[in-house]
Order: sequence, then C-alpha cells, then structure tokens
Amino acid sequence: MSSIFEGFLSTPEVLDAFGERSFLQAMLDFEAALAKAQARAGLIPEAAAAAIAAGCKVELLDTAAIVRDSALAGTLAVPLTKSLKDIVGRSSKEAAAFVHFGSTSQDVIDTALVLVTRRALRLIEADVRQAATALLALARQHAAAPVLARTLMQPASVTSFGLKCAGWAAPLVRSLQRMEVAAGRALRVQLGGAVGTLAQMKGRGPQVVAFLAAELDLRAPEAVWHTQRDEWLALGCELGLLAGSLGKMAKDIALMGQYEVGELAEPSAPGRGGSSAMPHKRNPVACMVALAASARAPQRVAALLAAMPQEHERALGNWQAELAEWPGLVAAAHGSARAMAQALPGLQVNTQRMRVNIASLRAELPAEAADEWFSFELAEHAAELARAQVQSQTAALNALGLPQHP
Amino acid sequence: MSSIFEGFLSTPEVLDAFGERSFLQAMLDFEAALAKAQARAGLIPEAAAAAIAAGCKVELLDTAAIVRDSALAGTLAVPLTKSLKDIVGRSSKEAAAFVHFGSTSQDVIDTALVLVTRRALRLIEADVRQAATALLALARQHAAAPVLARTLMQPASVTSFGLKCAGWAAPLVRSLQRMEVAAGRALRVQLGGAVGTLAQMKGRGPQVVAFLAAELDLRAPEAVWHTQRDEWLALGCELGLLAGSLGKMAKDIALMGQYEVGELAEPSAPGRGGSSAMPHKRNPVACMVALAASARAPQRVAALLAAMPQEHERALGNWQAELAEWPGLVAAAHGSARAMAQALPGLQVNTQRMRVNIASLRAELPAEAADEWFSFELAEHAAELARAQVQSQTAALNALGLPQHP
Amino acid sequence: MSSIFEGFLSTPEVLDAFGERSFLQAMLDFEAALAKAQARAGLIPEAAAAAIAAGCKVELLDTAAIVRDSALAGTLAVPLTKSLKDIVGRSSKEAAAFVHFGSTSQDVIDTALVLVTRRALRLIEADVRQAATALLALARQHAAAPVLARTLMQPASVTSFGLKCAGWAAPLVRSLQRMEVAAGRALRVQLGGAVGTLAQMKGRGPQVVAFLAAELDLRAPEAVWHTQRDEWLALGCELGLLAGSLGKMAKDIALMGQYEVGELAEPSAPGRGGSSAMPHKRNPVACMVALAASARAPQRVAALLAAMPQEHERALGNWQAELAEWPGLVAAAHGSARAMAQALPGLQVNTQRMRVNIASLRAELPAEAADEWFSFELAEHAAELARAQVQSQTAALNALGLPQHP
Amino acid sequence: MSSIFEGFLSTPEVLDAFGERSFLQAMLDFEAALAKAQARAGLIPEAAAAAIAAGCKVELLDTAAIVRDSALAGTLAVPLTKSLKDIVGRSSKEAAAFVHFGSTSQDVIDTALVLVTRRALRLIEADVRQAATALLALARQHAAAPVLARTLMQPASVTSFGLKCAGWAAPLVRSLQRMEVAAGRALRVQLGGAVGTLAQMKGRGPQVVAFLAAELDLRAPEAVWHTQRDEWLALGCELGLLAGSLGKMAKDIALMGQYEVGELAEPSAPGRGGSSAMPHKRNPVACMVALAASARAPQRVAALLAAMPQEHERALGNWQAELAEWPGLVAAAHGSARAMAQALPGLQVNTQRMRVNIASLRAELPAEAADEWFSFELAEHAAELARAQVQSQTAALNALGLPQHP
Repeated sequence: MSSIFEGFLSTPEVLDAFGERSFLQAMLDFEAALAKAQARAGLIPEAAAAAIAAGCKVELLDTAAIVRDSALAGTLAVPLTKSLKDIVGRSSKEAAAFVHFGSTSQDVIDTALVLVTRRALRLIEADVRQAATALLALARQHAAAPVLARTLMQPASVTSFGLKCAGWAAPLVRSLQRMEVAAGRALRVQLGGAVGTLAQMKGRGPQVVAFLAAELDLRAPEAVWHTQRDEWLALGCELGLLAGSLGKMAKDIALMGQYEVGELAEPSAPGRGGSSAMPHKRNPVACMVALAASARAPQRVAALLAAMPQEHERALGNWQAELAEWPGLVAAAHGSARAMAQALPGLQVNTQRMRVNIASLRAELPAEAADEWFSFELAEHAAELARAQVQSQTAALNALGLPQHP
Repeated sequence: MSSIFEGFLSTPEVLDAFGERSFLQAMLDFEAALAKAQARAGLIPEAAAAAIAAGCKVELLDTAAIVRDSALAGTLAVPLTKSLKDIVGRSSKEAAAFVHFGSTSQDVIDTALVLVTRRALRLIEADVRQAATALLALARQHAAAPVLARTLMQPASVTSFGLKCAGWAAPLVRSLQRMEVAAGRALRVQLGGAVGTLAQMKGRGPQVVAFLAAELDLRAPEAVWHTQRDEWLALGCELGLLAGSLGKMAKDIALMGQYEVGELAEPSAPGRGGSSAMPHKRNPVACMVALAASARAPQRVAALLAAMPQEHERALGNWQAELAEWPGLVAAAHGSARAMAQALPGLQVNTQRMRVNIASLRAELPAEAADEWFSFELAEHAAELARAQVQSQTAALNALGLPQHP
Repeated sequence: MSSIFEGFLSTPEVLDAFGERSFLQAMLDFEAALAKAQARAGLIPEAAAAAIAAGCKVELLDTAAIVRDSALAGTLAVPLTKSLKDIVGRSSKEAAAFVHFGSTSQDVIDTALVLVTRRALRLIEADVRQAATALLALARQHAAAPVLARTLMQPASVTSFGLKCAGWAAPLVRSLQRMEVAAGRALRVQLGGAVGTLAQMKGRGPQVVAFLAAELDLRAPEAVWHTQRDEWLALGCELGLLAGSLGKMAKDIALMGQYEVGELAEPSAPGRGGSSAMPHKRNPVACMVALAASARAPQRVAALLAAMPQEHERALGNWQAELAEWPGLVAAAHGSARAMAQALPGLQVNTQRMRVNIASLRAELPAEAADEWFSFELAEHAAELARAQVQSQTAALNALGLPQHP
Repeated sequence: MSSIFEGFLSTPEVLDAFGERSFLQAMLDFEAALAKAQARAGLIPEAAAAAIAAGCKVELLDTAAIVRDSALAGTLAVPLTKSLKDIVGRSSKEAAAFVHFGSTSQDVIDTALVLVTRRALRLIEADVRQAATALLALARQHAAAPVLARTLMQPASVTSFGLKCAGWAAPLVRSLQRMEVAAGRALRVQLGGAVGTLAQMKGRGPQVVAFLAAELDLRAPEAVWHTQRDEWLALGCELGLLAGSLGKMAKDIALMGQYEVGELAEPSAPGRGGSSAMPHKRNPVACMVALAASARAPQRVAALLAAMPQEHERALGNWQAELAEWPGLVAAAHGSARAMAQALPGLQVNTQRMRVNIASLRAELPAEAADEWFSFELAEHAAELARAQVQSQTAALNALGLPQHP
C-alpha cells in the first residue's frame, strides 16, 4: 500500500527499486532474456528474439494503464504482455507471437521481483557493512570504557562501552554471512510455464532455464518454485532478523540517549530530528526509523510465512498476498540499515557521563556491593572480550568480500 | 511501502485517499480548521486565521519536496508547516506566526489520518452493504436449495445454499454495526499540543478542541490520545475482522467454484480473470483479492497492537510504525469489500450441480446413511433458518441507515 | 503448548480455568445442560436427561486418556462423549443413547470454551478495575505534581504525574466498557448439530438452543457460529487491546523506574523481583509480566484473525488453530492485568525526584527556553485536565457495575 | 499457555520435552555441568562439583513449588538455584556456596532451552526425513501418472502426480539442509554471568565456557547471546518455514481428498478421524494438524522477531516473551511433521480418478484446447522432471547423514 509515511521510514533508492517503472522494466528484462534464451535454444527465431528485446523498454509502455488494467485481470502480467505484443507487433507480427512464449504470469513476476530484490539487497548489504564497520571502530576505541550494564532495566554491574558496541556489531556481521547464503539460494530465475512443467518448450525447457539464468546473471533453480516458497522466504526471514538486530541496537542507543542517562547522542545536523512544536528538541530519528522497522518487519515475515500453504500449481490469494507484503519488508530493512549506517559514524559518545552514572550509583550502595558489582575495574573483563570480538568480527567481515549477487 | 501490486489488490479510491496529495490536503484542512477554531476562541486574530485558511491548498505545496524533507526531519509535519508558513507569509507575516500555533506534529498527522480514514470508511461501508444486500437476495432466492454441507473438507450432510448465503451475510451486517460504534469512538480530532496539555492555549485548550472538532465535523475526544491508541486500534481491529469474514466467504466460493465441484462461478466479463498463458482459464479474481486481504490484514492488526506500548507523551518508532501500517490495512479491507460487492450480484449459482453432487454421494452410501444424512429434505431445516435470518438481517441492515460519519 | 514459563507470566486461576479438568468439566456441563434442554423440549426422556446429568462429573473421567485419545480422533469430543456414554450406560443403557444427541464436536467444544472464558473474564475485569481504581487514586493525589513530559524519548516540556496516571487509567476504563459489549455478544452457546441446521432435533432446535442457553446462563446466538467467528474474535481483539494498554503503562513505569530517572519504583517485598546473580537487584517484575503480555498478545490476535477463513460448515485446521491460540491470549491478558493490579496500589512515587529532573534540565537551558517549556507552573494546565478526567473516568467506572456475565 | 488442545495438535514426546520435569532437569544438567567445568578450570573444588552434580536430579525437587515461586521472583532460576543449594547443602555446606557460581538466570534458562530444543529437533528431523522419504517413493511410483494441474483453484493443464510429490518433498529436504546449518549455529551454551562479562570467573571465563560446552556436548558461542538473539531465532525461522512447507502439502492433499475430487485419501484406521455426530465421516486429521500448525507457526515467529529489540544486557519482558513463545513453535512443527510422516506412507492414491477428472474436463472443452492443455501425454514432461528431482533429492537426503546435534 502506497504510504506517504515511507518517505521518512525507508529510502528513495529502495522505493525506486520497487516502484512501478523499475518493476515493469524488470518484467521486460525477463521477457527480453526469455526470448534470447529461447532463440539460443532454437525454440524461436533469432530475429523474433531481437525484435522482442528491442521492445522491452519501459519508456514504450503506458505504465499507469498497465497498473490500472491489472485490476481487472488480477495480474500485472496480462496487461504487460499484451502491451509488449502490441509494441513488438508494430515492427514484426511474427515476433509478437513469440512474446512470453511458453511462460506464465508467475514466471515473469517472480523473476522481476528477484531482480529488483537483488538491487535492494546490494543497498542493504552496503549499509549494514558500513554500520558494522562503524561499530567495530567504536568497539576498538572504547574497548575499556566503563559503562553501567543494565538488566531488566536496572543497573546490574559494569561492562565496557566497547563490548556493547561489539555486541551490536556481531549480529550485523552474522546477518551479512547468513544473507549471502540465503540470497545465493533465493535469487533464482522462475520459469515453469503454465503449470511448472515447461511443457510448451518441447523438452528444451531446462536448457531455456539455464540460458535465461545466464542472461539475467541469476542462478537456475533446482525446480520451479511457483508454490514452493521456502528458499525465497528464508531470505525474507533474514531481513526480519536484520531488522530485529538493528532494532535492538536502536533501542539501546535511544535508552542511553535519554536526557537523564546522557551517555550517547545521535549526530546532529541542521533540520535533523527537529520538532514542529519545540525548537529545543533534537529527536533521535535514526533510532526512530530502526525501531519502526523492527516493529513492522516481524509482521511482514509472518504474512509471508502464513501465505506458504499455496494451493496446487499456483495459489489463489496467498501468492498475491506474499508479493504485496515483500516490498515493505525490504524497504523497512533498508530504511533501518541506512539510518544506522548514517548515524553510527557520528555517534556522540560521552564516556565521562558513563563514569558519572556509575559513580552516582556507587555512592548509594554499601561499599562492599559497590566494589563487587560496580567497580570501574570490571570494565577490564569486558575489554578483553571486546578486543577479541573486534578481531574475529573484522576477520569475518573481510572474509565476506564485496557485496555482490549472485 | 508503495507497491505496484496494490493495483489489483486494492481500489483506486482508497489508494487516492491515502495518497500524497490527499493526505497533505487533510493536514492542511487541520491547519485551517485549527486557525479558525483559535480565532473563534480569541487566541489568534480573525485575519490571521483567514490568511492561514487561504493558504491551506495542496496545489500551493511542493508535495514531493515535503515528502523528501520528511526523511531528515523524521516527520511530515516539520516540512509541511514550514511550507505553509512560507506560503502564508507571502501575504501576511503576522498570520504566518500563527500557523500550527500551540499544536504538535502528532496533532496534525493523527487528525489528517482520521480525516482520510473517514473517507475510506464510507467507501468500505457502501461496498459491505452492497455485498450484504446481494447475499440476502441470494439467501432468499435459494433458501431451500439443497447443497452438500461440508465439514473438515468432507461431505457431512445437507444444508441449503440460502443458509450458506445468510451465514456469509451475517458477519457483514455485524461488521457494519460494530464499525459504526468503533468509528464513532475512533474518529476524533487529535489536539494536545507539545505534550498533551494544550499548555500554550492559555486555558482555552478544551474550547479550541471543541471548535476544531466542529470545523472538521468530527467528535472531540475525552482526552488527548497521543499515546493511548486503544480507540483508534479498536477500529483497526474491526477492519481486520471484516477482512476475515470476507475471506471466509471467498474461501467457500472458491472451493465451490472448483471445476470438480462446479456449484458456483464468479461472473465473467471480457478481460476479467484472464491468464497470460492459458486462454481457456477464468480465474476467480474477486475471491483472490478477498483471500489476499484476509491473509494480509491480520498481520497489520498485529503490527498496530504490537505498537501500543508507546513511550511517555509521544513514542519513538512505535507511533511511526503504526501510522505506516494503517493505510495498508484500510486498503486491504476496501479491496476485499469492493471485490465481493462487485462479484456477488452476478454470482453464477448452479443449483442443479448442487443436487448432482448430493446424488452422487448418495449413490455411494448405504441407503440408510444416505437417507439419514444426505436426503434432499434436510434442506428444509436449513430453509427455515435461512428465511428467519434473512428477515432479521434485513431489519438490522435497514436500522443502520445510510453510511455516514461521525 | 504447555509451557513452564507461564508460571511467572500468567496466573494460577486462569491456568486452572483452561486446564484439563476444568475444560473437560465445562464440556460435561454442556452435555448435561443439553440433555436437560432436550428433555424440556420433549426430545428425550426426563429420566435420560437426569441420568446423563448425573454422569457429567469430571471425577468420573480418565482425563489423561481422553487427551491422549484426542490425538487419534483429532478432537476431544469423540473420546469425551464415548467416555460419557460408557459412564451413563452403566446406570442406563437407554440414557446412554441420548448422550450428545443431535450435537457435534464443535457445539460442545466451543460452548465449553465460552464457559471457561467467562470465568477468566471475570478475573480479568476484577483486576483491570482494581488497576484503574489505583490509578485514579494516584491521579487525584498527584494531579499537580510536575514531571517531565517526554516525546520521542527526549524531554519535551512539563506535565503532571496525575495526568500521566489518568492517561494510563483511561484505556482501562474504556476496555471495561468495550469488553462488556464484546462479551455480551461473544458469550453465547454454540449449538448447530452436525452442519449447523439442528436437523436431528425435529424442528425443535431453536427451542433447545434457548433452553440450553438458559441452563448455562448464556445468551442464545442469532445463528450458529461454527465458521462465522467474528463476534468471538471481536472479544479476542479486546483482550489484545487490553494487553496493549497495560503494556504502554508498564513501558512508562519501567522507563521512569530506571536508576538514572528514579521517579517510580514497583513495590518491594521479600523474594519479589530478585536476581539469581545479583543480591542488590530489584527487578520490576510486574512491568516485566505486562510487557511480555503486550509482546505476545498481538500475535495471538493475528493467529485468530488469520484463521477466520474457515471452510464451509466446519474448518480443517483453522478452527483447531483458533482454539489452541485462544487460551494463551486470555492467560497473557490476565497475567498482565493481575500484575499491574497488584503493583499499582503500592507504586512508589518520588515526586521530589521528578522535580529534580526538571530542575537539572532547566539548569542546562537558556532561561527563556527553560521558562517557556520547563517551568513547574506548566503542571497546572495538566492538573486541570487530570482532575476532569478523574471525575469522568470515576463516573464511567461506577456506571459499569459489578463485573458479571452475561 | 498450557492448552488441552495440544493433545491432538502436537506430540507426547515434544510436550514431554518442554514439560516441567524435563525442563527443570535440563536446568539441573546445566548446573551440574557448570560445576564440573569450573572444577576443571580450577575455580571451585572438585569435591564441591561432585556434590553439586549429585544433587542435580529432578526427583529431588518440589517441581510444583518451583514453578509457583517463579511467579514472585519473575524467573525460574531463583527458586531452582535456591532449592538446589538446599539439597546440596544437606551433604555439604561448602559445596552449596558454589551452586550457580558466577552464572545468571539467563545462562541456565537459555542453555536448558537449548538442551530440550536439541531433543525436539531430533524428533522433528526424524519425522521430516520419514515424510520426505515417503514422498520420494510416491514420486518414483507415480512419476508419469497424469493429474490435473490447477492454478488459482482452476484446472490449468496436466502434470504428473509424481511431480507433485517431488514438489512436496523438495522443501522438506531443503529444510533438513538449512536446519542442520541453523541448529549448528544456534545450539550453543549460554554463559555470560550477570552481565555477559564472566567477571566473577577471574579471567577463566572463556575456558569455563569451553569446558561447559564439552560437558553438554554443545558448541561454545563466539560471544554471549543474552540479548543478541539472531542465531537462536534463525533456527526458529526454520521451524516456521518447515511448518509452512508441510502446510502447503497438507492443503493440496486436503483439496485432492475432497469428495468431488477424490484423488487422494489419508490412510484409515479404527478411531482415526472419526466424527462425534456423523458415523460415516472420515476426517483428514493429519492434514488438519499440519494446517493448524501452518496457521500458528508464523505468528510465533513474529512474536520471536518482535521481541528482538532486547534492552541492554538482559531484557525486561521481551526475553520472557520469547522464552514463552518458543515451545509452542517447536511443538507445532513437530505435530505437523509427525502427522505427515505417519500419513504419507499409507496415502491412498487414486490414479484412475485423476484420469477421470482430466477426461471429464476434456469432454467439456473444444477438441483443440483439450489436446493442447489437457492431453494425458503432457504428463510425460512432468515425469522427466519428477525423475530428475527424485534422483537429486535422494542424493541430498543421503548426504545429510543421520540426524544428530551438534
């Protein structure tokens, strides 16, 4: 559902990736690649493939009309392929007959969603990497800085701020690791034809799948996944986990940034986090975005999982619900990752205040308890752990290489 | 999240209601009404109110810039009020100073959401009423038509198709009843100022609230509801319940419309429910839309409920998540109601096939069991119940009057 | 799912209400009442009804065997009615034949769930009332006590602690109001026979429904609700809203109880909120319970709503999922209500610290801003609102009368 | 929440695994292993470790009292460790002082949950393997058996039943693959002490973690995961995906088992799937269980993900909510896997009826459409794909080895 509120909860890049023009172009990219693959497999004439590919430009479409007509058809693929046939037919009647040959709605829509998701994942990964890198720098710098450790929202003992940062970084690094695996399994072409058997492709179906995958720089799946969505949704789960880990960090930062705690502050900038009523306010807007995402993503994941019992060879309602919930999940994840990637490098860390908070508490406690649980020296244990984790996480991060798919 | 898939899962009217222009105009409607209310209460000059109201036209805004700038501010209200001040300031510097006076982000955003939601509810109610009316007509017409009753997806005995229709209608009528109550409680202005105390309004706050409500034809709340969201979300729950009831009906119709069952079919029309691969297919697209909505709405309700623990006087992340999830819930509900409202009047009912299905089963059973559980006469019991329900539901529907808020 | 963690997240009373013995007794209560109602309607002999009623004692059942055998049957009703027939048959073979006459699994299970839910609702209402009463007393006492108002987790201005309390109380009072309505609509007998037509009751079905309802002190529904669950789930939504409102209060109290804020503390008692590691810790366990409930309840509501598209006359999987999710929702709501009802009367309120926190902030601000936004006098605006709300909420609470159903 | 309905939706084994005795024993296993590990590391005397280990028997506990007392403490660990100290203290006062040394509530509870989850995973994996194996056998046997392929609940073309079976099997095999990875990452000991720094263990903390892990035959984590739950929840997501894939299969089987379709039936057995009202009924109870699980699991996953923003070093409410939601997720997954593992080997396949359904449709269509889309020969394309998939899936299944953790 188009919502004006995404303007501050997501990013322009990911909104653009799932926008109408981008998505319809991705559908056209599928159609062009399919024609080329089929020509290469000898199923359709090379000239037809060339003519089709030449018509696969979103500029040639009336995008608003296609979205509007999808309401009647119940799918984007019907008006899209009709338009494409018209466009191709202007130059070649013969080629027009080969548009979308042997394929079905779900082939083009699922593959298009894979293509725009790949683009979004690259954005997400870059921002997660940047956030993790910033955290590891903080962890190194403040490895031994004492700070209250708090359990059940009460002071429990002393840890180090560096260990807190390493704790925030670890799930981001693991997210990158797991997402690499999940994306490798999920970013596949979809091509099954009407009912998943590629029947119209005269035995050359698997070959066409392989050529199509090569054209689009995606992997070929082991089998059509029209109604077997587990690999795709496993990637969705990863986005939910990422939003959760970023939300945990945002929760902590927001708590430490409370006026009475005063240990952290988001970087300030003109116009950033202002209030329409109170000129003195500076709101932690990066945390706001990450917390909003961590509140929304779990429900998107639930919607995807709940849609898994997809009927027979193509589902009625469930598949469409899954499609519609997906972009919001990706957008929430990127909004959150971007917000933290931008805020963390400039995070204002008040180690002096951290010590003051410890000292205040010490002053209220019996000396023995103060020394056992709230001595500044306790940060040393944390420092060792922090330094070890920075090292292993840095290594893990470097091992991941540059973000790329497939 | 803006999604191309809403084109076939929602309706243009509700997408428009929550679209950028409509929402920003609703925000401006709040600002205009606030100024008038404050003038009436003697808080600001009449001339200032008139100048502000004159500037509250969405055509005067750079809507794209406002959405873009909301990212930095973390709220739409900051760039919107800034723009409005600029616009008003061109004609009156004095008036510009009174823009948004004593109000806060959440006042204008929540009230704007109430205004566009009211518009959407009218659409929903009209379609639900139409669907219920069509069902009651079917229930009357087929009150005694025997059809297999099925439990746990197996034939259990015989009921009547009219009773099935009355059963589908009943929750729609109840939804209209409950929504009337819930909307009456939820569609209230929001006005609390910076922290809910209306402190800047010099003791005239409650008066301003009353005048503002009158201006916008909304009720005044008993108290500011910045972070007490129960009444608002109770309305959201009603939308979730509605989507569920429509989904139940769609599930049944889709099952009865299976080729092997053949008892029902959605109305056909050129281009409706076509397939990109199979020219012979007619897909039950109204059921598809309603089933998709019933799969999505529960998760939106969960997101709203999960966001309820909103911190202090305005929440960090939770409120924003709630805002962003709301439009999709309303849109799903309307998509579903509209789809069924359009499909039901032309529903193709094959009572002959219903009898054939019973007869086939009878032929496979021992005579005694066939007579006890699958005699056509069993439909008579159902017919009596169906007629009584048609009568009481029709009365209930008439008692509701025309859809209107507040 | 039986979980050891409910011991500290729920209450013994509600766990008992939904426990095996209590639930099976409620099923037996249905069977006894059904037999009496059918005797009264002349459908079965009075003697048979008396013999059946005499056998409807959970002490006579092998409850473990019934639960175990439900696995094979896929329902509790089959082994339960078989056992009851055996028990009744020992004294009267004739009476045994009338056990469960004309009824179906769902009749007895749904009605039993209504009966135990009624019991649980009385517990919930009593605790919510107690919590609301305690809050209104606090609101009265601290109507004018200045406290920082905080938005987006940052100090925004000054309000009064009394107004905060009134704000926490308001949704509880409204919950009681809405629950009274919802329970009145939801707590109905279920009786439809095999497929909802009461066919075996020879036209006397509606009469039996009325008599059954009278026996059980429940209302009769307008129609069987085997697969039309909206009224039942509307009650479930109310429980979700209640958990959310309690969670909001718990969030605020936990935040205000942080060491660095120090404005509130849960009452202390020996053994309460201790730590297995840190003897100095006192954990806010009431807030913990309420926050846990507010995190769990939304997902239960989603599960209920998602199960609404129930197939035909009885669903396969969806109904059973709904049944299984219901007790956890009720238990979470009661755990939360009980925790807050117990904690609020002894809440430790540190108004001095509230003033200190304001003063600290004032000292950091330019005088003008300090006076405009953080003067202690701002609490006066809040005090007026608080007193008005205490009055209207007290009236609303009194108007509700004693908790009772139906 | 203890629910009587788990009797037919879950399994005795998994209910037992998460039952009170089993869970408390797992907590004791942790305490025993911790003592041994600390003795090995030279932190506590060997004799003390032996005395502690000797007391770690659930038979020595008053389990009901521990659960009851957890309500006041807000955690199971406080009453458990107190009881254990009492027990150990009877034989050795000195040893009693070393019970739970340097550890915290969350260490023992999280690790206990890991231990019982490992046991449950073995059950799940065995049943998933059995289900997959049965499906591959069916896929082989019916590789070329023509059956209607259905899209959007309407006949679309012809596929083979073997390909449908291979399609159901594939996500099960992938689940086993992914679960192996996820379990390997998630099944780790938890040991961080009060705030995650192992401060009381005098620098020997990491050594103790390693020894503890060895004692319990679990892996050591790279870092304490008190509030970084991503690896644990990634395993939870896998359970959600599994429930979804099983639900998809159950949905298809239930649809194909409708009387009017008649292509499949669950195996019958005395007492299996009976009805309390209709003696002629045979309900597909395995599908019922799997469908119920697929409706419940997504919401549990959402609850887990939504709980991820866990505050600081130990969360207030979120952690406890996560704990309480976990067992139900595992139980639903196992109930579903077991149900399908039991039903699939005896699945009644009516290939004759599959052909009849195709033939009926052919008779209604123009000859050309019938031949293009509904010829029996189309199953040959499917057969080739089915055979290839059986081969690759069988290889994948064999590569997994016996289910075992870690």
